Amino acid sequence: MKPSFPPQLLLCHPDYGTLSGLSERDAPKERYVCLKIPDDLQRTDPMTETVSTIVAPEGSLEVLSQHEVERLRDTSGSGLHDLLRRCALAVLNCGTPTDDSRQVLETYHDFEIEVIQEDRGLRLKLDNAPAGAFVDGRMIRGIREHLSAVLRDIVYVANEIQNNDRFNLTSSEGITNAVFHILRNAGVLKAGSSPNIVVCWGGHSISRHEYDYSKSVGYQLGLRHKDICTGCGPGAMKGPMKGAHVAHAKQREKEGRYLGISEPGIIAAEAPNPIVNELVIMPDIEKRLEAFLRLAHGIIIFPGGVGTTEEILYLLGVLLHPDNADIPLPMVLTGPASSADYFRQVDAFIRYTLGEKATERYKIIIDDPEAVALDMCHGMDRLTLFRRDNDDAFYFNWRLNVPLEFQHPFLPTHEAMAALNLSTDQPVHELAANLRRAFSGIVAGNVKEHGIQAIEKHGPYKLHAPNALMIHLDELLKAFVEQQRMKLPGSHYEPCYELVS
Amino acid sequence: MKPSFPPQLLLCHPDYGTLSGLSERDAPKERYVCLKIPDDLQRTDPMTETVSTIVAPEGSLEVLSQHEVERLRDTSGSGLHDLLRRCALAVLNCGTPTDDSRQVLETYHDFEIEVIQEDRGLRLKLDNAPAGAFVDGRMIRGIREHLSAVLRDIVYVANEIQNNDRFNLTSSEGITNAVFHILRNAGVLKAGSSPNIVVCWGGHSISRHEYDYSKSVGYQLGLRHKDICTGCGPGAMKGPMKGAHVAHAKQREKEGRYLGISEPGIIAAEAPNPIVNELVIMPDIEKRLEAFLRLAHGIIIFPGGVGTTEEILYLLGVLLHPDNADIPLPMVLTGPASSADYFRQVDAFIRYTLGEKATERYKIIIDDPEAVALDMCHGMDRLTLFRRDNDDAFYFNWRLNVPLEFQHPFLPTHEAMAALNLSTDQPVHELAANLRRAFSGIVAGNVKEHGIQAIEKHGPYKLHAPNALMIHLDELLKAFVEQQRMKLPGSHYEPCYELVS
Amino acid sequence: MKPSFPPQLLLCHPDYGTLSGLSERDAPKERYVCLKIPDDLQRTDPMTETVSTIVAPEGSLEVLSQHEVERLRDTSGSGLHDLLRRCALAVLNCGTPTDDSRQVLETYHDFEIEVIQEDRGLRLKLDNAPAGAFVDGRMIRGIREHLSAVLRDIVYVANEIQNNDRFNLTSSEGITNAVFHILRNAGVLKAGSSPNIVVCWGGHSISRHEYDYSKSVGYQLGLRHKDICTGCGPGAMKGPMKGAHVAHAKQREKEGRYLGISEPGIIAAEAPNPIVNELVIMPDIEKRLEAFLRLAHGIIIFPGGVGTTEEILYLLGVLLHPDNADIPLPMVLTGPASSADYFRQVDAFIRYTLGEKATERYKIIIDDPEAVALDMCHGMDRLTLFRRDNDDAFYFNWRLNVPLEFQHPFLPTHEAMAALNLSTDQPVHELAANLRRAFSGIVAGNVKEHGIQAIEKHGPYKLHAPNALMIHLDELLKAFVEQQRMKLPGSHYEPCYELVS
Amino acid sequence: MKPSFPPQLLLCHPDYGTLSGLSERDAPKERYVCLKIPDDLQRTDPMTETVSTIVAPEGSLEVLSQHEVERLRDTSGSGLHDLLRRCALAVLNCGTPTDDSRQVLETYHDFEIEVIQEDRGLRLKLDNAPAGAFVDGRMIRGIREHLSAVLRDIVYVANEIQNNDRFNLTSSEGITNAVFHILRNAGVLKAGSSPNIVVCWGGHSISRHEYDYSKSVGYQLGLRHKDICTGCGPGAMKGPMKGAHVAHAKQREKEGRYLGISEPGIIAAEAPNPIVNELVIMPDIEKRLEAFLRLAHGIIIFPGGVGTTEEILYLLGVLLHPDNADIPLPMVLTGPASSADYFRQVDAFIRYTLGEKATERYKIIIDDPEAVALDMCHGMDRLTLFRRDNDDAFYFNWRLNVPLEFQHPFLPTHEAMAALNLSTDQPVHELAANLRRAFSGIVAGNVKEHGIQAIEKHGPYKLHAPNALMIHLDELLKAFVEQQRMKLPGSHYEPCYELVS
Repeated sequence: MKPSFPPQLLLCHPDYGTLSGLSERDAPKERYVCLKIPDDLQRTDPMTETVSTIVAPEGSLEVLSQHEVERLRDTSGSGLHDLLRRCALAVLNCGTPTDDSRQVLETYHDFEIEVIQEDRGLRLKLDNAPAGAFVDGRMIRGIREHLSAVLRDIVYVANEIQNNDRFNLTSSEGITNAVFHILRNAGVLKAGSSPNIVVCWGGHSISRHEYDYSKSVGYQLGLRHKDICTGCGPGAMKGPMKGAHVAHAKQREKEGRYLGISEPGIIAAEAPNPIVNELVIMPDIEKRLEAFLRLAHGIIIFPGGVGTTEEILYLLGVLLHPDNADIPLPMVLTGPASSADYFRQVDAFIRYTLGEKATERYKIIIDDPEAVALDMCHGMDRLTLFRRDNDDAFYFNWRLNVPLEFQHPFLPTHEAMAALNLSTDQPVHELAANLRRAFSGIVAGNVKEHGIQAIEKHGPYKLHAPNALMIHLDELLKAFVEQQRMKLPGSHYEPCYELVS
Repeated sequence: MKPSFPPQLLLCHPDYGTLSGLSERDAPKERYVCLKIPDDLQRTDPMTETVSTIVAPEGSLEVLSQHEVERLRDTSGSGLHDLLRRCALAVLNCGTPTDDSRQVLETYHDFEIEVIQEDRGLRLKLDNAPAGAFVDGRMIRGIREHLSAVLRDIVYVANEIQNNDRFNLTSSEGITNAVFHILRNAGVLKAGSSPNIVVCWGGHSISRHEYDYSKSVGYQLGLRHKDICTGCGPGAMKGPMKGAHVAHAKQREKEGRYLGISEPGIIAAEAPNPIVNELVIMPDIEKRLEAFLRLAHGIIIFPGGVGTTEEILYLLGVLLHPDNADIPLPMVLTGPASSADYFRQVDAFIRYTLGEKATERYKIIIDDPEAVALDMCHGMDRLTLFRRDNDDAFYFNWRLNVPLEFQHPFLPTHEAMAALNLSTDQPVHELAANLRRAFSGIVAGNVKEHGIQAIEKHGPYKLHAPNALMIHLDELLKAFVEQQRMKLPGSHYEPCYELVS
Repeated sequence: MKPSFPPQLLLCHPDYGTLSGLSERDAPKERYVCLKIPDDLQRTDPMTETVSTIVAPEGSLEVLSQHEVERLRDTSGSGLHDLLRRCALAVLNCGTPTDDSRQVLETYHDFEIEVIQEDRGLRLKLDNAPAGAFVDGRMIRGIREHLSAVLRDIVYVANEIQNNDRFNLTSSEGITNAVFHILRNAGVLKAGSSPNIVVCWGGHSISRHEYDYSKSVGYQLGLRHKDICTGCGPGAMKGPMKGAHVAHAKQREKEGRYLGISEPGIIAAEAPNPIVNELVIMPDIEKRLEAFLRLAHGIIIFPGGVGTTEEILYLLGVLLHPDNADIPLPMVLTGPASSADYFRQVDAFIRYTLGEKATERYKIIIDDPEAVALDMCHGMDRLTLFRRDNDDAFYFNWRLNVPLEFQHPFLPTHEAMAALNLSTDQPVHELAANLRRAFSGIVAGNVKEHGIQAIEKHGPYKLHAPNALMIHLDELLKAFVEQQRMKLPGSHYEPCYELVS
Repeated sequence: MKPSFPPQLLLCHPDYGTLSGLSERDAPKERYVCLKIPDDLQRTDPMTETVSTIVAPEGSLEVLSQHEVERLRDTSGSGLHDLLRRCALAVLNCGTPTDDSRQVLETYHDFEIEVIQEDRGLRLKLDNAPAGAFVDGRMIRGIREHLSAVLRDIVYVANEIQNNDRFNLTSSEGITNAVFHILRNAGVLKAGSSPNIVVCWGGHSISRHEYDYSKSVGYQLGLRHKDICTGCGPGAMKGPMKGAHVAHAKQREKEGRYLGISEPGIIAAEAPNPIVNELVIMPDIEKRLEAFLRLAHGIIIFPGGVGTTEEILYLLGVLLHPDNADIPLPMVLTGPASSADYFRQVDAFIRYTLGEKATERYKIIIDDPEAVALDMCHGMDRLTLFRRDNDDAFYFNWRLNVPLEFQHPFLPTHEAMAALNLSTDQPVHELAANLRRAFSGIVAGNVKEHGIQAIEKHGPYKLHAPNALMIHLDELLKAFVEQQRMKLPGSHYEPCYELVS
């Protein structure tokens, strides 16, 4: 008589916890196993398509002291609980193609997550989690890793960075040190490997055509054994990873890295695809941007909206600082033929405001994924030699000076906007920093809730800037509107600023 | 225009053969390397988009005796040369999405391949090879493996099977033994692994909708750690692999297997995608079919044309042999909702001709990839227990009796067709075998050049069959025509056979 | 005379940092490399047989922040420098068979070690280091790992444990937590592995015969895939590792673990053999003993001197605590036939003082290495089930209650000795704890410098104990003297204590 | 008494086939397994210390066709059975330190081995096998690999070499080809690795002092990451492996290779230690010698008896052939100070007979293991460059010309001996070949049964040689006698040859 253990689960893959690991020969012939259903194969609610279960963390948090588990449980149960819940839900919901985080929260309003302490470590108790994260009641391993990463980073930042005297988060050095520790704790700093991380930026709601192009670029990079790092989410964040993943398979590259660097504010809208095999949640936008810069061995910028332009200004602002003049970091702006205008305008604006020298920092390559990949390869070879010659680490760009003004967030109040010095009579890197701020403010005034309200209340921002500069800015933004790269509330573009000479 | 090989290449990935393997710390600080361009990075012709170069084999053929290299060179230089050239070209051309093999041969009419003998092994000299197989002048590794597989199998079959007294290719046992040896020589028989090979069959020119469905099924199988084996090429052959590849990445399954089993007659039309990481070229269609059956731990059949129906009859014919009555082999027919009619008709035809019992051998699952995957899992669990209980190997289904009539090709002459016994007054497995032959003949009379010519010359085939059976056959084929699953020469369906009671 | 570094060295092993990693085929044919001698292949002084060089850490400390390197350099340069220097010298001198640490320090009086900060991490600058740690000017990798472990543990304890508010080192819990963190930081807590660590204790200056026996036991354990953990050094610490290492090779066990747990006070006398592939330096004797108990899945005790007996009392004292009554921990006392008397006396003493129940905690197996190994296997199977049933971690025995009196060192002053309660009218585990203290005092009075001086000054210790107990103690110690297991200053045994009833 | 198989065995190492592969976390909490004792854990006879059991092959022979298993069974059951039985017994008896093969055969006179055919492959049925090869009823894995190697090589040679038209075993090329195929079939030709095989020759009954020296040399080679290849057995065959094994551990070298090359005639006397992780059984002495030469990247010769001297002559004979003049192969004769005389005499004899040029082929290094290792390293660097420049394989020295006279065995009949041309008036390599034959004959006349009988019957061999040469030979042999390197039947040395000028 055959034993009754769930008749449909008898011999399968290790992850099912049954007869795994037994090779054909080793397994004794007659073997009757009666298993109680493991406790993490439990309730699946067919109506709401949710699963309630208990999972063990994966890829981190395996060996914890009793104190640490306690602290984790306490931390996650109190102030951080809502943050943890939101991020966990974003990660678990990755299968569903929606970027409306509010809707996700509503759909899974009764989702709950709890840290459970056991002597041998910790477990995560999930209630009413999105069923898409599970296969036959077991969580997909990539998602389990992401869930562990979320817990790891949220708690690490709270316990070890924010509540730790050792990190002076008001100094530039202290912030950089915090960025380093978060990345190291996440295991993404690899001592032994050569430079080959390409950071890809760009819009997350680009056109299908632009998405396919970003995939092609990723494919060409993957064929050349490069790894991809993006901000997670769809669009230009996902395309390069998809492309590189296929190319790595064709090149039999099994150790390809797909790094996703997110932050709590956007993870819901830009959930990590499970292909991402290294996920880090940085505490805020500025540390996330700095993490990109410290990790990158090359940066590619695809078309995007105003946010992408702001990122370009951030990057150029840092690179134009005199301390960074000699530091190599290949930077390419690229897109399909249809996006040529977009880059022409961005380029013209940079050229006018920051000067010819700024444009030497990047190349614009239109509609040629292979050329983009080759340019990255050559630029990274030069970077490698530079780091070697200077005894610099490959895994973290210590030498780059990221000034404090780029590390602190800029709050675009009317006062702050009015106080911005946009005269061309200052060092370019300072102008870049201020432009980026102005830009950030304009973006807020156009699309962010608090910015729009402030405009409604106090009228347009007053910007003290030379006339000519303002004209260029106007042109740039109008072009974005025409190219449908800005989601504006009204039907025509109403500037949210005034020029005060 | 292709970029020329970068002269400044200094530090890059191992595959470029330069400073690979040197971790950051180990590499001495000052190091000056002057490299002559390696001899296999050579001529790229920008006009014809071809590359001429010399490559080393990869994944097989690494350790050969001087005699073996000599024999390889002689064999490939003489009678087998054209075969080798055609197959090599198919493999190298995988990047280009055309299934017109004649056009490929014309485009690359000056493509040439030559085996070169060196003391340390062999090299392949390629002239005017498709540039798409190369990255910066180096062949993509997956393609290099396929090229080696082609050489390996063609020569192995010629030298070790066909010219070897030990293989009696007129006996059923001898043929099975040959199939075993070709597969083992190709390295696809793995002693240590549990059953998890799902063979996927179906048309190679299915609709986009059906293709996406096959991808979904592959995805669900991959999430459950199953491996995929198909006949290479596009359509239902490629979809499941693509889907499984993404799922394996999400499950962090690095050892996923994507087996492609091809044969010289179709490899040009159904070139292996480089994702295929184990490629075997069987010498003919029958051995290829037998290879599928011996390797499979489960078989899924997607919608297809008449060829797919013939395959179903082949499979059922074998499984209905009394010797095979107890042998488990899960079999599922599946497709999206739009293909429900197709399967209904196939099912009805089988039910009528082979009886209810035949239909117990398979399930039809419409529009539910997850259910398909689960059914495969359960069926493979039962198969695993069966093999274990019977001390059967997991990697080769020795126990299955594939009768000689399924191993020898059927030549559909008018005499052979007229002589077929299609009466229902015989064992079902024999009827299945004869039906498959009749079917094969009808297919030939409809679409294959030599068949059409024979019909034109001698008139329709005369089939001695019961009336009722003929009606069912007619209905089935008409349905195929309506569903555009048959590429017919004329505008309406003209039966190529006549009923003779 | 040492050979100088070979100038013609061109192609060799990766560790030499030259053309490593190039497989035969990949390496381009013509390749001319001119290397400057790497900067860590430097001065070898043939007269003193010392080497001065710079090495990178191995196996830990690879990815450090700039702050951390700074702190490391500062810490190692100030108060901890002498400690670091002594431990480093012990590790580097492992090749030379002397256990006289004073002599080692004299021989290498001009040995110096310095932490150097580089952007990419840290380096260790060594001056006049023992040449035996190097091969052709490169440090043996096992020794490099040990050197890194020494630095890692000394600095970790100083920075993270002793100067950290989170560890309350006056509470039992806090001490256990510190032990956990030191072990985890050293990487010896492995989440994925099943229980198979056998801790081996015993004398480090046992007879050749007893050493060979300990090797046999290690061999039998190794044949059964067990790992070995000892206190480093020679004798019963080295034998089991040597034996297991050979057995692991015969069983093709490549992942065998040889854990060495030392502490600064004894590492010079008991330097780790480079076979030890995981080395931890605990801050003091008590934490070292607790580390053994928390890690052990089984404990074997070979013959030894008084120290070994004290360890037995420590172990039994802990195990006899009522909280630990149900916790399985297999314990075997074993030796060759010639040591039967030793164990008989130890056993009799325990039986008398701690009662029959205490003797149920261990087995004595004489002259049968195979039986010892089998007993360990069975005991560890039971332990495995117990931990599983209780959700206990496999890698750290959290459940075991090690009372504070075993965690705090006992200082054997005359007052403390006189105050010891040795009446049999108390719980056995408390008596065990006090006996161990009394024993520790007697040991000190007999052989340790400060103890002997105290006795000379104040006369024998006064011990308030029942007469009968004293007689048993006397007998035990006399037997040790006869068996030459005690190195006594004088020629006959003069008790250092007096009985006061 | 052997312990019986533990009935309570529940949780243990994968090799026991129970709960292996389940990591702590994955294993479900409650799990009750009832195992029937696997069928290969069977009878242990405590009286004779033998085990009867069934084992699966390991490391080869895993994937066989049904025909192959049949052929194996037939082959092993008929003519080859006695050969297989003797070799298997030698391998199984490796634990017992006796080199008297006759005694082994007597002790285990009822040992029996049988090949069993199962559908899934083959099994080996053993009756009354030496218990020392087993641990708790399971064969030690290293020994199981050796047993499989024995079966593999014996049957491969019989089936594929000797009964195969493709191998012309009368031609030099054909023999070399056979050697290549046997080695490749055994898996010892590794395409990807750099040259680092050091072949070690020398006596198997050397003194303890010489044995320890050979261990030191192996240790120094191992510290430099070299692999060791010997002829198996004790003495100079075992020492270098033991030393290298410890050194590899210290250098954390997990992939160290310990190749043993044996042949049926000596495997009983020189059984492979289970540390040998690659074992090949060549069909005869000459092919074994050729295998050493084709594999070696360097050769070290330790002191030995007359056999060792014969090997030196074989090696020099080949190397002195004009075709081989430019082929690098480092060769060192070495031993402790006490063996200086031995090498002085061997050197003098070579110098006199083969001339100064012959002595340029080797170095003699006395009592300096480190210098020996360094010399090997430098010589192997030169060899590596030479092979690379000439496109030669690293894994098999195709270029070396081993003339037919060294490949065919020399039968020392009185006629053959009398016919030897020992005049110095011929090319040195031919003189070397003839000297080696004369030497082989003298050895036979002194110590081998059939030689001694021939001498008794026909009187001493007549050797036609120049007087002076005979004197040198005499001196050499007398020295061997004095150094107790010859086991002679009588009490004083009675030459078995006469000089005929």
